[in-house]
Amino acid sequence: MNIPRTSYPRIVIIGGGFAGVALAKKLSKQEVQVVLLDKHNYHTFQPLLYQVSTGGLEPDSIAYPIRKILKDFPNFYFRLADVKEIDTKKNKVRTNIGNLKFDYLVVASGSKTNYFGNSNIEKYSMAMKTIPQSLNLRSLILENFEEALLTSDLNERDALMNFVIVGGGPTGVELAGALAEIKKGILPKDYPDLDTRSAQINIIQSSDCILKGMSEKASSRAEDFLEKLGVNVWKNVRVTNYDGKIVTTNTDLTFETATVVWAAGVKGATIKGLEAEEFMTNGNRLLVNEFNQVKGFDAIFAIGDIACMVNEEFPNGLPMMAQPAIQQGEQLGDNILKLIEEKSMVPFSYKDKGAMATIGRNKAVVDLKNFKFQGVFAWYVWMFVHLFFLIGFRNRMVVFVNWVYNYVRFDREARLIIRPFKKHYNS
Amino acid sequence: MNIPRTSYPRIVIIGGGFAGVALAKKLSKQEVQVVLLDKHNYHTFQPLLYQVSTGGLEPDSIAYPIRKILKDFPNFYFRLADVKEIDTKKNKVRTNIGNLKFDYLVVASGSKTNYFGNSNIEKYSMAMKTIPQSLNLRSLILENFEEALLTSDLNERDALMNFVIVGGGPTGVELAGALAEIKKGILPKDYPDLDTRSAQINIIQSSDCILKGMSEKASSRAEDFLEKLGVNVWKNVRVTNYDGKIVTTNTDLTFETATVVWAAGVKGATIKGLEAEEFMTNGNRLLVNEFNQVKGFDAIFAIGDIACMVNEEFPNGLPMMAQPAIQQGEQLGDNILKLIEEKSMVPFSYKDKGAMATIGRNKAVVDLKNFKFQGVFAWYVWMFVHLFFLIGFRNRMVVFVNWVYNYVRFDREARLIIRPFKKHYNS
Repeated sequence: MNIPRTSYPRIVIIGGGFAGVALAKKLSKQEVQVVLLDKHNYHTFQPLLYQVSTGGLEPDSIAYPIRKILKDFPNFYFRLADVKEIDTKKNKVRTNIGNLKFDYLVVASGSKTNYFGNSNIEKYSMAMKTIPQSLNLRSLILENFEEALLTSDLNERDALMNFVIVGGGPTGVELAGALAEIKKGILPKDYPDLDTRSAQINIIQSSDCILKGMSEKASSRAEDFLEKLGVNVWKNVRVTNYDGKIVTTNTDLTFETATVVWAAGVKGATIKGLEAEEFMTNGNRLLVNEFNQVKGFDAIFAIGDIACMVNEEFPNGLPMMAQPAIQQGEQLGDNILKLIEEKSMVPFSYKDKGAMATIGRNKAVVDLKNFKFQGVFAWYVWMFVHLFFLIGFRNRMVVFVNWVYNYVRFDREARLIIRPFKKHYNS
Repeated sequence: MNIPRTSYPRIVIIGGGFAGVALAKKLSKQEVQVVLLDKHNYHTFQPLLYQVSTGGLEPDSIAYPIRKILKDFPNFYFRLADVKEIDTKKNKVRTNIGNLKFDYLVVASGSKTNYFGNSNIEKYSMAMKTIPQSLNLRSLILENFEEALLTSDLNERDALMNFVIVGGGPTGVELAGALAEIKKGILPKDYPDLDTRSAQINIIQSSDCILKGMSEKASSRAEDFLEKLGVNVWKNVRVTNYDGKIVTTNTDLTFETATVVWAAGVKGATIKGLEAEEFMTNGNRLLVNEFNQVKGFDAIFAIGDIACMVNEEFPNGLPMMAQPAIQQGEQLGDNILKLIEEKSMVPFSYKDKGAMATIGRNKAVVDLKNFKFQGVFAWYVWMFVHLFFLIGFRNRMVVFVNWVYNYVRFDREARLIIRPFKKHYNS
């Protein structure tokens, strides 16, 4: 990779998610060379992917060109690259576009969908971790309805209109709510010749409450909201298989469905070279100390979802969410500079700013440290916070226009099958 | 296709472009059954495709769900279908989702790129007639720059940054202008480590002026504008081949380039069953009489790009543009109703409302019947007219926000490689 060697120390960051971008921003005005590697040329605002899948937002407005985020910083280099391996002995990363030496390496490669070893589920279910995946889901949902119109087999029709979401975390809950609103507000108008009342939205949670990790109140209100919207909430049910037609569970319950969205878990997106058991802990995450140093290394760090930082409050590691990722990125920026100047680093401490989830129109749950609330006001707070954290003024404006429009008109106009998922695309 | 037969006559429309949608709207409140078939579930506002390719607009904001356009009309049916054949004897269309009888058939299948039989050019060049094609071009342009960064072969680097647009019609001119603005305003910021001054934008026109069909003044001002933007305008040059590396022409001129955009011609998107020579005329278009009836039929019509209506002013048929398509669709709506009521139909007469093209920031050319102007005011008129004709309030708002943002910030933020064109997409 033809990146000039300067007198500045070179910090290579793998991944342009929340953690990687926060770190790069922090470092970019300093006397260091920063090389950011990502396999996409854009940063994805993952919390809104479910709105892309359900036609509420355009994909382009929750993505932001990485080059633009850091365009004003002279010592910043971006490369569109897929990192294949880390050579911890020679301080080198190997990528599809060549090798690169580093002085400091920060792994911020994030997480990927965890199928817990079930290859059937991996093959037949839909994930929602990237923009292309979300667009595939959008196409599939719409293609299903088009197909439902055509079949004369009522079982097949029901299966095409039966949606199974596995996992009752924020992603699953928000998607279920959005699908329920589509069923109610859009399908009867778009498909007057189809009895869309038989469309079913199911959310399956293996434990005894949804939105685990939020307060009991938030969890129970979210469940109320979902049930009011007509979503079937199945608790204490664990999905055991999906063969492309039928979902089986650890109970008598089965679901005949053409669409399973797997939002039941994530695991660290590890990279060869740091995959040995000695580096990793539960959920394929890299064990890091309080300075985000990967166990056994001084100059190799991990931040964000891929990093597992254990403390008293979080014995299984900090939650895999945007907040810890951003805070770790910012903190590590300061710490690397300290390390370079041979000062002592400051240990990371997580400031939990709370959690929130939206279930639908006027329906959200918000847990702040000292204040937990649900309903309309929570919904406004949810929207404001998401607009605020979205990168880019244009993105904010476009998302805002869409939200106002969708709210006023009870609509979601991006219900477009631009690249069909089922059929091979031609022309 | 399970569409109920009612006592109303059934009018089948093939294609949801400008012509098909205008016709369907006109008919939808009448005592007829309308079945619209299209292989996409959305209407595309083709005049703005070039802005999708150049990162100025999101694809979703120039598309509109066809089901939504006609959702309030009880006798309207839409089917996502690819029409394979028309059986003119049995009054039936055959599609990938089944057959359908018609009482009246309207072919509004539009046009497709015309490679004039050159299979090399078809294989290696990019077209820009559909949203997926425009997104492919957007990905390719950005992938080229990422690759240019990596190569140490200066010839290859130049080829990756050399853009050849074949065809000096509105599409070619608008794309060339947009690429020139990207070269000037965005590349130096996004790729500070690449000498983007060597990026070249070439537009090749086989005749002696660009924007043929517009006034001489419009054509020469457009050429001035392009040259001011640094575009190389090649006139009286005809491209003879492109092997994926080198463009050859009927002159000594050759271009080494990784990107050829073929905007040199379109031809009717004909359908089997009406493909015989007896129905067709120049450019694969269906010969129609003044009532848009296809030669030899009373109940089979053609409108829009696929229809060739010849009159004194247009001996080669009306221009293949949005205006004649919309006007024919509206007029045919009235005429079919007259035909059903056994009244006599009114011959179509084309009201030429003028033509326009934009070359870039503050630069456009407009020809109205009695008033031809160029420059800033023309540019505002161009924007206003395009916003006005765009379908959907949300689309207009989002496009407006993008345009204001792009204008104020000299920017185009949708420079995202969401689905890479060159590499096979994984996850």
